[in-house]
Amino acid sequence: MHLTKCERGVIEIMMNARLILCMICPDEPGLIARVTGVLHRHGGNIVENGEYVDPETHQFFMRSAVDGIEDAELLLKVLKTELPKGASVKLQEATNKKVMLMATKEPHCLGDLLIRSSFGDLPMEVCGVIANHEDLRQLTESFGIPFHFCDHRGISREEQEANVKALIDEAEPDLVVMAKYMRILSTEFIQSYPNRIVNIHHSFLPAFVGANPYRQAWERGVKIIGATAHFASEDLDEGPIIAQDVTSVSHHHRPKDMARNGRDVEKRVLAHALRLVLEDRVVVTGNKTVVFE
Amino acid sequence: MHLTKCERGVIEIMMNARLILCMICPDEPGLIARVTGVLHRHGGNIVENGEYVDPETHQFFMRSAVDGIEDAELLLKVLKTELPKGASVKLQEATNKKVMLMATKEPHCLGDLLIRSSFGDLPMEVCGVIANHEDLRQLTESFGIPFHFCDHRGISREEQEANVKALIDEAEPDLVVMAKYMRILSTEFIQSYPNRIVNIHHSFLPAFVGANPYRQAWERGVKIIGATAHFASEDLDEGPIIAQDVTSVSHHHRPKDMARNGRDVEKRVLAHALRLVLEDRVVVTGNKTVVFE
Amino acid sequence: MHLTKCERGVIEIMMNARLILCMICPDEPGLIARVTGVLHRHGGNIVENGEYVDPETHQFFMRSAVDGIEDAELLLKVLKTELPKGASVKLQEATNKKVMLMATKEPHCLGDLLIRSSFGDLPMEVCGVIANHEDLRQLTESFGIPFHFCDHRGISREEQEANVKALIDEAEPDLVVMAKYMRILSTEFIQSYPNRIVNIHHSFLPAFVGANPYRQAWERGVKIIGATAHFASEDLDEGPIIAQDVTSVSHHHRPKDMARNGRDVEKRVLAHALRLVLEDRVVVTGNKTVVFE
Amino acid sequence: MHLTKCERGVIEIMMNARLILCMICPDEPGLIARVTGVLHRHGGNIVENGEYVDPETHQFFMRSAVDGIEDAELLLKVLKTELPKGASVKLQEATNKKVMLMATKEPHCLGDLLIRSSFGDLPMEVCGVIANHEDLRQLTESFGIPFHFCDHRGISREEQEANVKALIDEAEPDLVVMAKYMRILSTEFIQSYPNRIVNIHHSFLPAFVGANPYRQAWERGVKIIGATAHFASEDLDEGPIIAQDVTSVSHHHRPKDMARNGRDVEKRVLAHALRLVLEDRVVVTGNKTVVFE
Repeated sequence: MHLTKCERGVIEIMMNARLILCMICPDEPGLIARVTGVLHRHGGNIVENGEYVDPETHQFFMRSAVDGIEDAELLLKVLKTELPKGASVKLQEATNKKVMLMATKEPHCLGDLLIRSSFGDLPMEVCGVIANHEDLRQLTESFGIPFHFCDHRGISREEQEANVKALIDEAEPDLVVMAKYMRILSTEFIQSYPNRIVNIHHSFLPAFVGANPYRQAWERGVKIIGATAHFASEDLDEGPIIAQDVTSVSHHHRPKDMARNGRDVEKRVLAHALRLVLEDRVVVTGNKTVVFE
Repeated sequence: MHLTKCERGVIEIMMNARLILCMICPDEPGLIARVTGVLHRHGGNIVENGEYVDPETHQFFMRSAVDGIEDAELLLKVLKTELPKGASVKLQEATNKKVMLMATKEPHCLGDLLIRSSFGDLPMEVCGVIANHEDLRQLTESFGIPFHFCDHRGISREEQEANVKALIDEAEPDLVVMAKYMRILSTEFIQSYPNRIVNIHHSFLPAFVGANPYRQAWERGVKIIGATAHFASEDLDEGPIIAQDVTSVSHHHRPKDMARNGRDVEKRVLAHALRLVLEDRVVVTGNKTVVFE
Repeated sequence: MHLTKCERGVIEIMMNARLILCMICPDEPGLIARVTGVLHRHGGNIVENGEYVDPETHQFFMRSAVDGIEDAELLLKVLKTELPKGASVKLQEATNKKVMLMATKEPHCLGDLLIRSSFGDLPMEVCGVIANHEDLRQLTESFGIPFHFCDHRGISREEQEANVKALIDEAEPDLVVMAKYMRILSTEFIQSYPNRIVNIHHSFLPAFVGANPYRQAWERGVKIIGATAHFASEDLDEGPIIAQDVTSVSHHHRPKDMARNGRDVEKRVLAHALRLVLEDRVVVTGNKTVVFE
Repeated sequence: MHLTKCERGVIEIMMNARLILCMICPDEPGLIARVTGVLHRHGGNIVENGEYVDPETHQFFMRSAVDGIEDAELLLKVLKTELPKGASVKLQEATNKKVMLMATKEPHCLGDLLIRSSFGDLPMEVCGVIANHEDLRQLTESFGIPFHFCDHRGISREEQEANVKALIDEAEPDLVVMAKYMRILSTEFIQSYPNRIVNIHHSFLPAFVGANPYRQAWERGVKIIGATAHFASEDLDEGPIIAQDVTSVSHHHRPKDMARNGRDVEKRVLAHALRLVLEDRVVVTGNKTVVFE
């Protein structure tokens, strides 16, 4: 398994940078006071703060954006001693994340992310695009981004995934974003990047799982269609949902019209979900997410 | 099977009233010209018009709102000779429909419809409320509407449904609206009122069919919940969808919060769907609807 | 000026009730730690928490829902000593508020609130309805709520407002809700109940201020109409906005159709805004609101 | 004044192509029958049809998509004799339109349209981009589209507009789309291309006309912001509205956050409006539009 910098526990943080603290621990009274107290004693000024207690697991979740911390490493050490056993703490600089994009043939999500990235609209640096077709090479390269063609034809799924994996592991991205990558990934592949693969599914999950959701939607005669951005998990289309959105349709919409209107929803849901993840606003708990908006 | 006035082919239409013409027939070139020509020659002025051709069945659907028709019965006769074989034509006065409401304990949908009806916001006359609990008696009677308590306890489903059916058949409503009637109806019951029972389901169908959809939604961690108004059909939650709408939720929403927010969606989707049906804008085809909005 | 219980600083709080703490003070580092520390030392368990710092005024806003406080009066005293000078602190039990409704002729908002109140959907107790027409008497009284007819015909605005004011001041409500009360209130009247009058305006403010907004919307040819719930302020339609929502329209919608569709938006925006206010989630700052959702 | 092909009355239509008929004339009974009759007699099969009668001007609007017409020129001639005096008829092939894009510095709208165009998502051919800054040159040229820099510095508005006009008139586009072109255009310029300039305004018009609408929205404390696509008219921000959409904001959103979220709305409203215009679904009447969706 490949670890990102922050997962390896290595924190290389510029002095006085804005930090994002994310923590999970068993709930107990006084936690907010304790954490914010520690932050204050280390020079921190909280500019944004969110908490949540899961009513079933009694886990406490907290996300703080903090300015003015002088010694982040020391802060992390102190926090770990002050918090209950089993606490998980992540402290990161609020800075651009490295992202590998994956796609197949459709340009709408990929193009949208490339433009956003190239003009600084999303806090990320795209390190490359991996695709199982050549269709999007020109679009990708016009933004100066390396395009990696990983053909799936004539080789086994294992071989193709090994090729993809080699590219990812060399680039060491913080996130992998499947911007309409239309191949089913193996459990093994997904487990290599736990909670680090963001996928966009072209339906309002859990409605219409599986293939051809717009056709399914048309057959059912629904009046609203949608899209779902989620973390990839072992069970296809069952991963923790990050964001969803919908659009209205009528009997006039054939499957291809639904697909066309759906593309606009996919594009904006994926960009929205990605922003949330890039800003460390999304914490996975079981098969759900806590989203600090 | 009980027939409403319009299904019995009896049309008693005031002279010069606004008429709603709904027709379905196999598509062929020139149909719009033919139908609008007939309407024009009978003194009709089309104030609203909608057409649709189903790309799979090649059926032609048309709805027209027409003023100035002098002899509706004659018009209907002529239309039937001019149209292709197998055409189904319905000609009705654009007037209030008679509606029987059914409910259980929740007041939001029932109360909303009673207020709308009593102040003329929907073109209907509520002839009664049938409920399997006493909770909504006072609310109903405060609007001067008869409340019929059809207890389901201590008797078989067949007996209880027979009681409900007797009340409906005596009242001869055009429509039966299940405003959160929380009992599963038998196939036999539903077949007695084909495409005349409007139900509100508290989920964004086909997601979360069956019981306790808000609990299911919470367990799946969705970010949007919804409601679906549909015609009741033999397969539960599988009937033709009339209208749907959604609302956003977050990890902060427990099932009871989702249910609370969902009630507002249920209420507005049901009222919206009911308006469409009451204005003869909804035509059922297979398990779908054509909605002339 | 009439003061509600909580404004008079009188707090009569049941032991161990859930409390809502709302505070505003000049921002300084460590405030969250200080406040949550005090809460913890008084036995409080924070079940919900929100903070905000206004980037222009540098005011700090905080709302906490707290369980387990043993001595609320002592807590309030301590909080006041710990907080910066100029802090404003409000500590209230999370319980039903007393509400006076005002209306004219339209039943949709009033009826919706009466049903919600009578079935416990909103944390309020409606103490009466004041109206300048008799149209809504029966609807009101069917819910067992006193209906006060305050005719405006044949008397001066001052006299009529004095009559309204007398009724309000006798009832001592926490809130006055103008559920489509179609009379313009004097500055003097509004100043008697600062930030305690919630109004629903039938447009997406600041578009279409003043009379007949649906007509204005129609004339401008907009494709979306809306409604705005706000606190009444001296400048008509200029008060702090609490909630807004919209709905789509097309060229087919005449002013009366816009009004009809708009009523549904008005109804749900008002109910939503009222829930926020009743749960002490809305803090007024200048002509804006901070809403802790 | 520059005329497009279709405005010059020249119709060069491929035999059997899908045609779009748009017509306006004084309303009178039997118009639909007459027009659809003519279409039928010329071999036309209507695949989509929309009508509208303006309740104030009593003008009749009709749009039909027709297959199978053998002689379009003849059809047009016949239609003109059959229709009431003063009828305006436009008959066009349902094919790609030629579009000139204009922009300044922001890439979101321009980039979105370039991607859509290059992958065939919108029925248009972009003939060039005119900008008053160099920022978007690379983005434009990466799609193989000519980029025309029309500096406004150091010259008069008249001179700069003359330069823009020369480029447009040479290209002879059907439409000019201001994809965030942040210069105010002269009345004279706008009058050169009546109902052929589509603009995106970054507010929910008529709220916040003029400069810096997101700042205005923030100052007013609105809870929803929006964007408006409209035809440019002599009165700035007063042109006929084609499409609008909105997004929610809260007190947490500063003007720059509103601008960021607003960009997503601008992008999708402009693309949606443009699709409607390109498919000849939008008819201007006075300062409003009739949109056949």
